[in-house]
Amino acid sequence: MKIITKFSILQKEIKKGKKQGKIVGFVPTMGALHQGHLSLIRRARRENDLVIVSIFVNPAQFGPKEDYAKYPRNLRLDAQLCGQEKTDIIFYPGVKEMYPSGYNTYVTVERLSDVLCGKYRPGHFKGVATVVTKLLNIINPDSAYFGQKDAQQAVIIKKLAGDLNMPVKIKIMPTLRERDGLALSSRNVYLSPAERKDSLVLFQALKLAKDLIRGGQKDATKVTAKMRHLIEKKKTAKIDYVSIVGLNDLAPLKKITGFCLIAEAVWFGKTRLIDNIIIGS
Amino acid sequence: MKIITKFSILQKEIKKGKKQGKIVGFVPTMGALHQGHLSLIRRARRENDLVIVSIFVNPAQFGPKEDYAKYPRNLRLDAQLCGQEKTDIIFYPGVKEMYPSGYNTYVTVERLSDVLCGKYRPGHFKGVATVVTKLLNIINPDSAYFGQKDAQQAVIIKKLAGDLNMPVKIKIMPTLRERDGLALSSRNVYLSPAERKDSLVLFQALKLAKDLIRGGQKDATKVTAKMRHLIEKKKTAKIDYVSIVGLNDLAPLKKITGFCLIAEAVWFGKTRLIDNIIIGS
Repeated sequence: MKIITKFSILQKEIKKGKKQGKIVGFVPTMGALHQGHLSLIRRARRENDLVIVSIFVNPAQFGPKEDYAKYPRNLRLDAQLCGQEKTDIIFYPGVKEMYPSGYNTYVTVERLSDVLCGKYRPGHFKGVATVVTKLLNIINPDSAYFGQKDAQQAVIIKKLAGDLNMPVKIKIMPTLRERDGLALSSRNVYLSPAERKDSLVLFQALKLAKDLIRGGQKDATKVTAKMRHLIEKKKTAKIDYVSIVGLNDLAPLKKITGFCLIAEAVWFGKTRLIDNIIIGS
Repeated sequence: MKIITKFSILQKEIKKGKKQGKIVGFVPTMGALHQGHLSLIRRARRENDLVIVSIFVNPAQFGPKEDYAKYPRNLRLDAQLCGQEKTDIIFYPGVKEMYPSGYNTYVTVERLSDVLCGKYRPGHFKGVATVVTKLLNIINPDSAYFGQKDAQQAVIIKKLAGDLNMPVKIKIMPTLRERDGLALSSRNVYLSPAERKDSLVLFQALKLAKDLIRGGQKDATKVTAKMRHLIEKKKTAKIDYVSIVGLNDLAPLKKITGFCLIAEAVWFGKTRLIDNIIIGS
Protein backbone atom coordinates (compact mmCIF):
# COMPACT_ATOMS: atom_id res chain seq x y z
CA MET A 1 0.00 0.00 0.00
CA LYS A 2 1.27 3.43 -0.95
CA ILE A 3 0.56 6.67 0.89
CA ILE A 4 0.69 9.56 -1.59
CA THR A 5 0.40 13.24 -0.71
CA LYS A 6 0.80 14.91 -4.14
CA PHE A 7 -1.97 14.69 -6.69
CA SER A 8 0.48 14.75 -9.60
CA ILE A 9 2.13 11.59 -8.30
CA LEU A 10 -1.22 9.98 -7.58
CA GLN A 11 -2.35 10.70 -11.13
CA LYS A 12 0.74 9.01 -12.57
CA GLU A 13 0.00 5.89 -10.50
CA ILE A 14 -3.60 5.87 -11.64
CA LYS A 15 -2.67 6.44 -15.27
CA LYS A 16 -0.34 3.45 -15.06
CA GLY A 17 -3.12 1.31 -13.61
CA LYS A 18 -5.65 2.44 -16.20
CA LYS A 19 -3.23 1.64 -19.03
CA GLN A 20 -3.16 -1.91 -17.68
CA GLY A 21 -6.97 -1.91 -17.94
CA LYS A 22 -7.55 -1.62 -14.19
CA ILE A 23 -10.97 -0.56 -12.89
CA VAL A 24 -10.61 2.15 -10.24
CA GLY A 25 -12.69 2.42 -7.06
CA PHE A 26 -12.51 5.43 -4.77
CA VAL A 27 -13.55 5.93 -1.14
CA PRO A 28 -13.26 9.56 0.01
CA THR A 29 -13.00 9.96 3.79
CA MET A 30 -11.93 12.44 6.45
CA GLY A 31 -10.05 9.67 8.26
CA ALA A 32 -10.89 8.54 11.81
CA LEU A 33 -12.03 5.42 10.03
CA HIS A 34 -14.69 3.18 11.56
CA GLN A 35 -16.46 0.05 10.38
CA GLY A 36 -18.76 2.17 8.23
CA HIS A 37 -15.79 3.42 6.19
CA LEU A 38 -14.31 -0.07 6.12
CA SER A 39 -17.52 -1.47 4.67
CA LEU A 40 -17.15 1.04 1.80
CA ILE A 41 -13.53 0.01 1.25
CA ARG A 42 -14.49 -3.68 1.29
CA ARG A 43 -17.15 -3.05 -1.33
CA ALA A 44 -14.70 -1.04 -3.43
CA ARG A 45 -12.17 -3.90 -3.08
CA ARG A 46 -14.72 -6.44 -4.34
CA GLU A 47 -15.70 -4.35 -7.35
CA ASN A 48 -12.40 -2.84 -8.55
CA ASP A 49 -8.78 -3.61 -9.41
CA LEU A 50 -7.29 -0.45 -7.93
CA VAL A 51 -8.72 0.85 -4.65
CA ILE A 52 -7.91 4.40 -3.54
CA VAL A 53 -8.93 5.84 -0.17
CA SER A 54 -8.51 9.56 0.40
CA ILE A 55 -8.00 10.91 3.91
CA PHE A 56 -8.49 14.67 4.04
CA VAL A 57 -10.16 16.71 6.75
CA ASN A 58 -11.62 19.30 4.41
CA PRO A 59 -11.54 22.77 5.97
CA ALA A 60 -13.97 24.12 3.34
CA GLN A 61 -16.84 22.06 4.76
CA PHE A 62 -16.48 23.24 8.37
CA GLY A 63 -18.06 26.45 9.65
CA PRO A 64 -15.91 28.89 11.64
CA LYS A 65 -17.37 27.66 14.95
CA GLU A 66 -17.34 23.98 14.05
CA ASP A 67 -14.98 21.18 15.05
CA TYR A 68 -12.35 21.41 12.27
CA ALA A 69 -9.46 21.78 14.72
CA LYS A 70 -10.52 19.00 17.05
CA TYR A 71 -11.82 16.57 14.40
CA PRO A 72 -10.10 13.24 15.21
CA ARG A 73 -6.96 12.54 13.16
CA ASN A 74 -4.92 9.36 13.35
CA LEU A 75 -3.13 8.51 10.12
CA ARG A 76 -1.19 5.60 11.60
CA LEU A 77 -4.32 3.77 12.73
CA ASP A 78 -6.22 4.70 9.56
CA ALA A 79 -3.39 3.38 7.39
CA GLN A 80 -3.36 0.12 9.36
CA LEU A 81 -7.10 -0.31 8.81
CA CYS A 82 -6.81 0.54 5.09
CA GLY A 83 -3.99 -2.01 4.83
CA GLN A 84 -6.13 -4.70 6.41
CA GLU A 85 -8.80 -4.04 3.78
CA LYS A 86 -6.19 -4.31 0.99
CA THR A 87 -6.37 -0.69 -0.08
CA ASP A 88 -3.86 -0.01 -2.88
CA ILE A 89 -3.29 3.71 -2.32
CA ILE A 90 -4.09 6.21 0.42
CA PHE A 91 -4.27 9.75 -0.93
CA TYR A 92 -3.35 11.98 1.99
CA PRO A 93 -2.97 15.55 0.71
CA GLY A 94 -2.18 18.57 2.84
CA VAL A 95 -4.48 21.58 2.89
CA LYS A 96 -2.07 23.55 0.64
CA GLU A 97 -2.13 20.73 -1.90
CA MET A 98 -5.92 20.92 -2.15
CA TYR A 99 -6.38 24.66 -1.64
CA PRO A 100 -3.23 26.45 -2.76
CA SER A 101 -2.90 30.16 -2.08
CA GLY A 102 -5.41 32.10 -4.19
CA TYR A 103 -7.81 29.18 -4.50
CA ASN A 104 -11.12 30.56 -5.83
CA THR A 105 -13.35 27.93 -7.42
CA TYR A 106 -16.41 26.45 -5.74
CA VAL A 107 -19.16 24.06 -6.74
CA THR A 108 -22.66 24.49 -5.39
CA VAL A 109 -25.68 22.27 -5.76
CA GLU A 110 -28.45 24.82 -5.33
CA ARG A 111 -31.70 24.11 -3.47
CA LEU A 112 -30.52 20.70 -2.14
CA SER A 113 -27.76 22.41 -0.14
CA ASP A 114 -29.94 24.87 1.75
CA VAL A 115 -32.30 22.46 3.52
CA LEU A 116 -31.82 20.01 6.43
CA CYS A 117 -28.18 20.18 7.59
CA GLY A 118 -27.47 22.92 5.05
CA LYS A 119 -29.78 25.26 6.95
CA TYR A 120 -27.76 24.78 10.14
CA ARG A 121 -24.34 24.52 8.52
CA PRO A 122 -24.22 27.30 5.91
CA GLY A 123 -21.50 26.64 3.34
CA HIS A 124 -21.04 23.03 4.44
CA PHE A 125 -22.30 21.40 1.25
CA LYS A 126 -20.51 23.93 -0.93
CA GLY A 127 -17.33 22.70 0.76
CA VAL A 128 -18.36 19.06 0.29
CA ALA A 129 -19.35 19.53 -3.37
CA THR A 130 -16.10 21.36 -4.11
CA VAL A 131 -13.76 18.84 -2.52
CA VAL A 132 -15.62 15.88 -4.02
CA THR A 133 -15.45 17.48 -7.48
CA LYS A 134 -11.71 18.01 -7.05
CA LEU A 135 -11.10 14.48 -5.79
CA LEU A 136 -13.19 12.93 -8.58
CA ASN A 137 -11.26 15.00 -11.14
CA ILE A 138 -7.91 13.99 -9.68
CA ILE A 139 -8.71 10.29 -9.40
CA ASN A 140 -11.24 9.85 -12.22
CA PRO A 141 -12.55 6.60 -10.70
CA ASP A 142 -15.02 4.22 -12.27
CA SER A 143 -16.97 4.14 -9.00
CA ALA A 144 -16.96 6.23 -5.82
CA TYR A 145 -18.45 5.02 -2.53
CA PHE A 146 -20.32 7.03 0.10
CA GLY A 147 -22.32 6.14 3.20
CA GLN A 148 -26.08 6.53 3.51
CA LYS A 149 -25.51 7.90 7.04
CA ASP A 150 -24.78 11.25 5.37
CA ALA A 151 -28.05 11.11 3.46
CA GLN A 152 -28.09 14.69 2.23
CA GLN A 153 -24.46 14.49 1.15
CA ALA A 154 -25.30 11.34 -0.83
CA VAL A 155 -28.17 13.05 -2.65
CA ILE A 156 -26.05 16.12 -3.39
CA ILE A 157 -23.10 14.14 -4.71
CA LYS A 158 -25.28 12.01 -6.96
CA LYS A 159 -26.86 15.22 -8.26
CA LEU A 160 -23.57 17.01 -8.86
CA ALA A 161 -21.99 14.05 -10.63
CA GLY A 162 -25.01 13.87 -12.93
CA ASP A 163 -25.37 17.62 -13.47
CA LEU A 164 -21.66 18.13 -14.21
CA ASN A 165 -21.52 15.04 -16.47
CA MET A 166 -18.84 13.33 -14.43
CA PRO A 167 -18.09 9.88 -15.81
CA VAL A 168 -18.35 8.07 -12.44
CA LYS A 169 -20.82 5.75 -10.74
CA ILE A 170 -21.78 7.08 -7.29
CA LYS A 171 -22.58 4.15 -4.96
CA ILE A 172 -24.33 4.69 -1.64
CA MET A 173 -23.82 2.01 1.02
CA PRO A 174 -26.04 1.33 4.06
CA THR A 175 -25.47 2.93 7.46
CA LEU A 176 -23.65 0.70 9.95
CA ARG A 177 -24.68 0.83 13.61
CA GLU A 178 -23.42 -0.11 17.03
CA ARG A 179 -25.24 -3.09 18.55
CA ASP A 180 -27.46 -0.68 20.51
CA GLY A 181 -28.45 1.19 17.33
CA LEU A 182 -26.23 4.29 17.34
CA ALA A 183 -25.06 5.01 13.79
CA LEU A 184 -21.28 4.78 13.44
CA SER A 185 -19.68 8.23 13.18
CA SER A 186 -16.19 9.57 13.72
CA ARG A 187 -17.79 12.13 16.02
CA ASN A 188 -19.15 9.51 18.46
CA VAL A 189 -15.82 9.64 20.32
CA TYR A 190 -16.73 13.15 21.49
CA LEU A 191 -19.69 11.85 23.57
CA SER A 192 -19.59 11.71 27.37
CA PRO A 193 -21.08 8.54 28.89
CA ALA A 194 -24.36 10.39 29.61
CA GLU A 195 -24.53 11.82 26.08
CA ARG A 196 -23.69 8.40 24.62
CA LYS A 197 -26.66 6.95 26.50
CA ASP A 198 -28.99 9.77 25.40
CA SER A 199 -27.85 9.46 21.79
CA LEU A 200 -29.68 6.14 21.48
CA VAL A 201 -32.82 8.19 21.13
CA LEU A 202 -31.77 9.01 17.55
CA PHE A 203 -32.37 5.48 16.37
CA GLN A 204 -35.34 5.02 18.71
CA ALA A 205 -37.03 8.06 17.17
CA LEU A 206 -36.47 6.67 13.66
CA LYS A 207 -37.93 3.32 14.72
CA LEU A 208 -40.89 5.11 16.26
CA ALA A 209 -41.48 6.95 12.98
CA LYS A 210 -41.28 3.71 11.05
CA ASP A 211 -43.78 2.04 13.38
CA LEU A 212 -46.21 4.97 13.15
CA ILE A 213 -46.05 5.04 9.36
CA ARG A 214 -46.34 1.25 9.10
CA GLY A 215 -49.36 1.60 11.39
CA GLY A 216 -51.03 3.89 8.85
CA GLN A 217 -50.01 7.38 9.93
CA LYS A 218 -49.65 9.49 6.78
CA ASP A 219 -49.36 12.92 8.36
CA ALA A 220 -45.67 13.87 8.43
CA THR A 221 -46.15 16.62 11.02
CA LYS A 222 -47.76 14.16 13.43
CA VAL A 223 -44.90 11.72 12.99
CA THR A 224 -42.17 14.33 13.50
CA ALA A 225 -44.01 15.77 16.52
CA LYS A 226 -43.89 12.36 18.20
CA MET A 227 -40.21 11.97 17.30
CA ARG A 228 -39.42 15.41 18.73
CA HIS A 229 -41.34 14.59 21.89
CA LEU A 230 -39.31 11.41 22.37
CA ILE A 231 -35.97 13.14 21.71
CA GLU A 232 -36.78 16.10 23.94
CA LYS A 233 -37.14 13.75 26.92
CA LYS A 234 -33.35 13.34 26.91
CA LYS A 235 -31.57 15.87 29.10
CA THR A 236 -28.47 16.35 26.91
CA ALA A 237 -30.39 16.47 23.60
CA LYS A 238 -31.11 19.62 21.58
CA ILE A 239 -32.79 19.22 18.20
CA ASP A 240 -31.56 21.00 15.04
CA TYR A 241 -34.21 19.34 12.87
CA VAL A 242 -36.43 16.29 12.50
CA SER A 243 -37.76 16.10 8.93
CA ILE A 244 -39.56 13.85 6.52
CA VAL A 245 -38.61 14.69 2.95
CA GLY A 246 -38.68 13.39 -0.61
CA LEU A 247 -35.88 10.96 -1.44
CA ASN A 248 -34.37 12.86 -4.35
CA ASP A 249 -35.47 16.47 -3.98
CA LEU A 250 -35.24 16.62 -0.15
CA ALA A 251 -38.46 18.67 -0.20
CA PRO A 252 -40.57 18.45 2.99
CA LEU A 253 -43.54 16.10 2.74
CA LYS A 254 -46.90 16.83 4.31
CA LYS A 255 -48.46 13.54 3.40
CA ILE A 256 -46.29 10.45 3.48
CA THR A 257 -46.61 8.46 0.27
CA GLY A 258 -44.13 6.28 -1.57
CA PHE A 259 -40.52 6.37 -0.49
CA CYS A 260 -39.33 9.06 1.86
CA LEU A 261 -36.30 10.02 3.90
CA ILE A 262 -36.70 10.54 7.63
CA ALA A 263 -33.72 12.58 8.79
CA GLU A 264 -32.68 14.18 12.05
CA ALA A 265 -29.83 16.22 13.47
CA VAL A 266 -29.53 16.49 17.24
CA TRP A 267 -26.92 17.96 19.54
CA PHE A 268 -25.86 15.92 22.56
CA GLY A 269 -23.91 18.42 24.62
CA LYS A 270 -21.38 19.89 22.20
CA THR A 271 -21.62 17.03 19.72
CA ARG A 272 -23.95 17.20 16.75
CA LEU A 273 -25.07 13.82 15.41
CA ILE A 274 -27.21 12.95 12.41
CA ASP A 275 -29.13 9.85 11.46
CA ASN A 276 -31.77 8.80 8.94
CA ILE A 277 -33.75 5.98 7.47
CA ILE A 278 -35.46 5.54 4.15
CA ILE A 279 -38.89 3.98 4.26
CA GLY A 280 -41.50 3.05 1.70
CA SER A 281 -44.99 3.51 3.12
CA MET B 1 -17.36 14.86 -39.91
CA LYS B 2 -20.06 13.81 -37.47
CA ILE B 3 -22.64 16.06 -35.82
CA ILE B 4 -23.60 14.58 -32.45
CA THR B 5 -26.33 15.94 -30.17
CA LYS B 6 -26.22 13.45 -27.26
CA PHE B 7 -23.32 13.44 -24.83
CA SER B 8 -23.59 9.69 -24.25
CA ILE B 9 -22.99 9.07 -27.98
CA LEU B 10 -20.19 11.63 -28.08
CA GLN B 11 -18.50 9.93 -25.13
CA LYS B 12 -18.58 6.56 -26.90
CA GLU B 13 -16.90 8.10 -29.95
CA ILE B 14 -14.24 9.72 -27.79
CA LYS B 15 -13.64 6.53 -25.80
CA LYS B 16 -13.10 4.69 -29.08
CA GLY B 17 -10.60 7.33 -30.21
CA LYS B 18 -8.74 7.33 -26.91
CA LYS B 19 -8.44 3.53 -26.97
CA GLN B 20 -6.64 3.97 -30.28
CA GLY B 21 -4.27 6.37 -28.52
CA LYS B 22 -5.70 9.49 -30.10
CA ILE B 23 -4.95 12.91 -28.57
CA VAL B 24 -8.14 14.95 -28.22
CA GLY B 25 -8.43 18.70 -28.87
CA PHE B 26 -11.57 20.64 -28.02
CA VAL B 27 -12.84 24.04 -29.18
CA PRO B 28 -15.98 25.20 -27.32
CA THR B 29 -18.01 27.80 -29.21
CA MET B 30 -21.47 29.35 -29.33
CA GLY B 31 -21.47 28.99 -33.13
CA ALA B 32 -21.72 31.96 -35.51
CA LEU B 33 -18.15 31.02 -36.30
CA HIS B 34 -15.71 33.60 -37.60
CA GLN B 35 -12.01 33.49 -38.46
CA GLY B 36 -11.15 33.79 -34.76
CA HIS B 37 -12.91 30.51 -34.04
CA LEU B 38 -11.40 28.94 -37.15
CA SER B 39 -7.91 29.88 -35.98
CA LEU B 40 -8.61 27.91 -32.78
CA ILE B 41 -9.84 24.93 -34.77
CA ARG B 42 -6.78 25.07 -37.04
CA ARG B 43 -4.49 25.08 -34.03
CA ALA B 44 -6.43 22.18 -32.48
CA ARG B 45 -6.16 20.31 -35.81
CA ARG B 46 -2.37 20.76 -35.87
CA GLU B 47 -1.91 19.57 -32.29
CA ASN B 48 -4.40 16.70 -31.96
CA ASP B 49 -5.66 13.51 -33.59
CA LEU B 50 -9.33 14.02 -32.76
CA VAL B 51 -10.78 17.54 -33.00
CA ILE B 52 -14.13 18.28 -31.41
CA VAL B 53 -15.94 21.61 -31.76
CA SER B 54 -18.98 22.26 -29.58
CA ILE B 55 -21.68 24.64 -30.73
CA PHE B 56 -24.00 25.58 -27.90
CA VAL B 57 -25.55 28.96 -27.19
CA ASN B 58 -25.44 28.62 -23.42
CA PRO B 59 -28.52 30.20 -21.81
CA ALA B 60 -26.86 30.15 -18.36
CA GLN B 61 -24.36 32.82 -19.38
CA PHE B 62 -26.92 35.35 -20.66
CA GLY B 63 -28.70 37.79 -18.36
CA PRO B 64 -32.49 38.13 -18.62
CA LYS B 65 -32.19 41.33 -20.68
CA GLU B 66 -29.31 40.15 -22.86
CA ASP B 67 -29.24 38.86 -26.43
CA TYR B 68 -29.79 35.11 -25.89
CA ALA B 69 -32.81 34.98 -28.20
CA LYS B 70 -31.27 37.00 -31.01
CA TYR B 71 -27.72 35.61 -30.75
CA PRO B 72 -26.83 34.56 -34.33
CA ARG B 73 -27.36 30.85 -35.06
CA ASN B 74 -26.52 29.15 -38.35
CA LEU B 75 -25.61 25.48 -37.97
CA ARG B 76 -25.43 24.82 -41.70
CA LEU B 77 -22.80 27.50 -42.29
CA ASP B 78 -20.93 26.65 -39.07
CA ALA B 79 -20.81 22.98 -40.07
CA GLN B 80 -19.46 23.90 -43.47
CA LEU B 81 -16.69 25.97 -41.90
CA CYS B 82 -15.86 23.21 -39.38
CA GLY B 83 -15.72 20.74 -42.26
CA GLN B 84 -13.28 22.95 -44.16
CA GLU B 85 -11.01 22.98 -41.11
CA LYS B 86 -11.19 19.16 -40.90
CA THR B 87 -13.07 19.02 -37.62
CA ASP B 88 -13.84 15.41 -36.68
CA ILE B 89 -16.94 15.94 -34.55
CA ILE B 90 -19.34 18.80 -33.91
CA PHE B 91 -21.06 18.45 -30.54
CA TYR B 92 -24.38 20.25 -30.93
CA PRO B 93 -26.48 19.57 -27.82
CA GLY B 94 -29.91 21.00 -27.14
CA VAL B 95 -30.61 23.02 -24.01
CA LYS B 96 -32.42 20.04 -22.41
CA GLU B 97 -29.38 17.84 -23.01
CA MET B 98 -27.14 20.27 -21.12
CA TYR B 99 -29.62 21.49 -18.50
CA PRO B 100 -32.26 18.80 -17.96
CA SER B 101 -35.25 19.59 -15.79
CA GLY B 102 -34.18 20.03 -12.15
CA TYR B 103 -30.62 21.03 -13.07
CA ASN B 104 -29.04 22.51 -9.92
CA THR B 105 -25.23 22.50 -9.99
CA TYR B 106 -23.12 25.58 -10.67
CA VAL B 107 -19.41 26.37 -10.66
CA THR B 108 -18.20 29.80 -9.59
CA VAL B 109 -14.73 31.26 -9.69
CA GLU B 110 -14.98 33.79 -6.92
CA ARG B 111 -13.37 37.26 -7.03
CA LEU B 112 -12.31 36.92 -10.71
CA SER B 113 -15.98 36.74 -11.76
CA ASP B 114 -17.17 39.92 -10.07
CA VAL B 115 -14.88 42.45 -11.77
CA LEU B 116 -14.72 43.89 -15.33
CA CYS B 117 -17.51 42.27 -17.40
CA GLY B 118 -18.72 40.35 -14.34
CA LYS B 119 -19.74 43.61 -12.71
CA TYR B 120 -21.96 44.49 -15.67
CA ARG B 121 -23.14 40.97 -16.45
CA PRO B 122 -23.98 39.40 -13.07
CA GLY B 123 -24.07 35.61 -13.31
CA HIS B 124 -22.36 35.59 -16.71
CA PHE B 125 -19.15 33.90 -15.59
CA LYS B 126 -21.02 31.47 -13.36
CA GLY B 127 -22.80 30.35 -16.53
CA VAL B 128 -19.51 30.21 -18.45
CA ALA B 129 -17.68 28.30 -15.70
CA THR B 130 -20.54 25.82 -15.37
CA VAL B 131 -20.91 25.03 -19.06
CA VAL B 132 -17.15 24.77 -19.57
CA THR B 133 -16.85 22.40 -16.60
CA LYS B 134 -19.63 20.25 -18.07
CA LEU B 135 -18.13 20.24 -21.56
CA LEU B 136 -14.64 19.42 -20.26
CA ASN B 137 -16.10 16.57 -18.18
CA ILE B 138 -18.04 15.21 -21.15
CA ILE B 139 -15.17 15.42 -23.63
CA ASN B 140 -12.15 15.04 -21.34
CA PRO B 141 -9.81 16.56 -23.92
CA ASP B 142 -6.04 16.77 -23.72
CA SER B 143 -6.22 20.45 -24.73
CA ALA B 144 -9.01 23.02 -24.95
CA TYR B 145 -8.69 26.23 -26.98
CA PHE B 146 -10.06 29.68 -26.16
CA GLY B 147 -9.59 33.15 -27.62
CA GLN B 148 -7.75 35.99 -25.90
CA LYS B 149 -10.52 38.33 -27.10
CA ASP B 150 -12.51 37.10 -24.09
CA ALA B 151 -9.66 37.91 -21.73
CA GLN B 152 -11.55 37.57 -18.46
CA GLN B 153 -13.11 34.30 -19.58
CA ALA B 154 -9.64 33.00 -20.42
CA VAL B 155 -8.31 33.87 -16.94
CA ILE B 156 -11.35 32.33 -15.25
CA ILE B 157 -11.21 29.10 -17.23
CA LYS B 158 -7.49 28.64 -16.59
CA LYS B 159 -8.19 29.25 -12.92
CA LEU B 160 -11.11 26.84 -12.70
CA ALA B 161 -9.28 24.07 -14.54
CA GLY B 162 -6.36 24.43 -12.13
CA ASP B 163 -8.46 24.82 -8.99
CA LEU B 164 -10.71 21.86 -9.82
CA ASN B 165 -7.73 19.69 -10.86
CA MET B 166 -9.04 19.10 -14.36
CA PRO B 167 -6.55 17.10 -16.42
CA VAL B 168 -6.60 19.44 -19.43
CA LYS B 169 -4.28 22.03 -20.96
CA ILE B 170 -6.07 25.36 -21.49
CA LYS B 171 -4.60 27.16 -24.50
CA ILE B 172 -5.33 30.81 -25.19
CA MET B 173 -4.95 32.01 -28.79
CA PRO B 174 -4.46 35.62 -29.97
CA THR B 175 -7.34 37.91 -30.92
CA LEU B 176 -7.98 38.16 -34.65
CA ARG B 177 -9.01 41.52 -36.11
CA GLU B 178 -10.58 42.99 -39.21
CA ARG B 179 -8.11 44.89 -41.39
CA ASP B 180 -9.24 48.13 -39.77
CA GLY B 181 -8.57 46.79 -36.27
CA LEU B 182 -12.02 45.75 -34.99
CA ALA B 183 -11.69 42.49 -33.04
CA LEU B 184 -13.64 39.65 -34.64
CA SER B 185 -16.82 38.87 -32.72
CA SER B 186 -20.06 37.08 -33.54
CA ARG B 187 -21.81 40.20 -32.27
CA ASN B 188 -20.27 42.51 -34.89
CA VAL B 189 -23.14 41.60 -37.25
CA TYR B 190 -25.48 43.58 -34.97
CA LEU B 191 -23.71 46.90 -35.76
CA SER B 192 -25.29 49.56 -37.99
CA PRO B 193 -22.90 51.22 -40.45
CA ALA B 194 -22.50 54.23 -38.10
CA GLU B 195 -21.86 51.97 -35.08
CA ARG B 196 -19.43 49.86 -37.09
CA LYS B 197 -17.47 53.02 -37.87
CA ASP B 198 -17.51 54.22 -34.26
CA SER B 199 -16.45 50.78 -33.00
CA LEU B 200 -12.96 51.32 -34.43
CA VAL B 201 -12.34 53.50 -31.41
CA LEU B 202 -12.00 50.31 -29.32
CA PHE B 203 -8.72 49.36 -30.96
CA GLN B 204 -7.65 53.00 -31.29
CA ALA B 205 -8.05 53.47 -27.52
CA LEU B 206 -5.95 50.36 -26.87
CA LYS B 207 -3.26 51.63 -29.23
CA LEU B 208 -3.35 55.01 -27.50
CA ALA B 209 -2.85 53.29 -24.13
CA LYS B 210 0.05 51.30 -25.51
CA ASP B 211 1.70 54.45 -26.90
CA LEU B 212 1.25 56.32 -23.63
CA ILE B 213 2.72 53.48 -21.58
CA ARG B 214 5.57 52.95 -24.05
CA GLY B 215 6.14 56.70 -23.72
CA GLY B 216 6.69 56.31 -20.00
CA GLN B 217 3.26 56.91 -18.50
CA LYS B 218 2.94 54.67 -15.42
CA ASP B 219 -0.24 56.12 -13.92
CA ALA B 220 -3.12 53.82 -14.86
CA THR B 221 -5.80 56.41 -14.10
CA LYS B 222 -4.20 58.88 -16.48
CA VAL B 223 -4.08 56.28 -19.24
CA THR B 224 -7.69 55.17 -18.81
CA ALA B 225 -8.85 58.83 -18.62
CA LYS B 226 -7.33 59.47 -22.05
CA MET B 227 -8.86 56.28 -23.42
CA ARG B 228 -12.28 57.27 -22.06
CA HIS B 229 -11.93 60.71 -23.55
CA LEU B 230 -11.19 59.24 -26.98
CA ILE B 231 -14.07 56.77 -26.80
CA GLU B 232 -16.56 59.35 -25.55
CA LYS B 233 -16.02 61.40 -28.70
CA LYS B 234 -17.99 58.77 -30.63
CA LYS B 235 -21.71 59.48 -30.74
CA THR B 236 -22.95 55.89 -30.55
CA ALA B 237 -20.47 54.81 -27.84
CA LYS B 238 -21.33 54.28 -24.18
CA ILE B 239 -18.61 52.91 -21.89
CA ASP B 240 -19.20 50.07 -19.42
CA TYR B 241 -15.58 50.06 -18.29
CA VAL B 242 -12.03 50.86 -19.32
CA SER B 243 -9.58 49.15 -16.93
CA ILE B 244 -5.95 48.30 -16.47
CA VAL B 245 -5.57 45.20 -14.32
CA GLY B 246 -3.14 42.48 -13.29
CA LEU B 247 -2.82 39.66 -15.80
CA ASN B 248 -3.75 36.80 -13.49
CA ASP B 249 -5.72 38.32 -10.62
CA LEU B 250 -7.57 40.96 -12.69
CA ALA B 251 -7.05 43.40 -9.82
CA PRO B 252 -6.97 47.11 -10.79
CA LEU B 253 -3.49 48.58 -11.07
CA LYS B 254 -2.64 52.09 -9.96
CA LYS B 255 0.91 52.03 -11.18
CA ILE B 256 1.67 50.18 -14.39
CA THR B 257 4.60 47.80 -13.94
CA GLY B 258 5.40 44.50 -15.59
CA PHE B 259 2.70 42.84 -17.65
CA CYS B 260 -0.84 44.10 -17.47
CA LEU B 261 -4.18 43.66 -19.20
CA ILE B 262 -5.89 46.71 -20.68
CA ALA B 263 -9.53 45.83 -21.14
CA GLU B 264 -12.63 47.69 -22.20
CA ALA B 265 -16.33 47.09 -22.74
CA VAL B 266 -18.30 49.63 -24.73
CA TRP B 267 -21.83 49.74 -26.07
CA PHE B 268 -22.36 50.90 -29.62
CA GLY B 269 -26.09 51.44 -29.78
CA LYS B 270 -27.59 48.18 -28.50
CA THR B 271 -24.43 46.15 -29.10
CA ARG B 272 -21.90 45.60 -26.35
CA LEU B 273 -18.36 44.92 -27.57
CA ILE B 274 -15.21 44.07 -25.64
CA ASP B 275 -11.56 44.26 -26.53
CA ASN B 276 -8.21 44.06 -24.77
CA ILE B 277 -4.47 43.95 -25.16
CA ILE B 278 -1.74 42.63 -22.92
CA ILE B 279 1.31 44.83 -22.62
CA GLY B 280 4.62 44.61 -20.79
CA SER B 281 5.75 48.06 -19.72
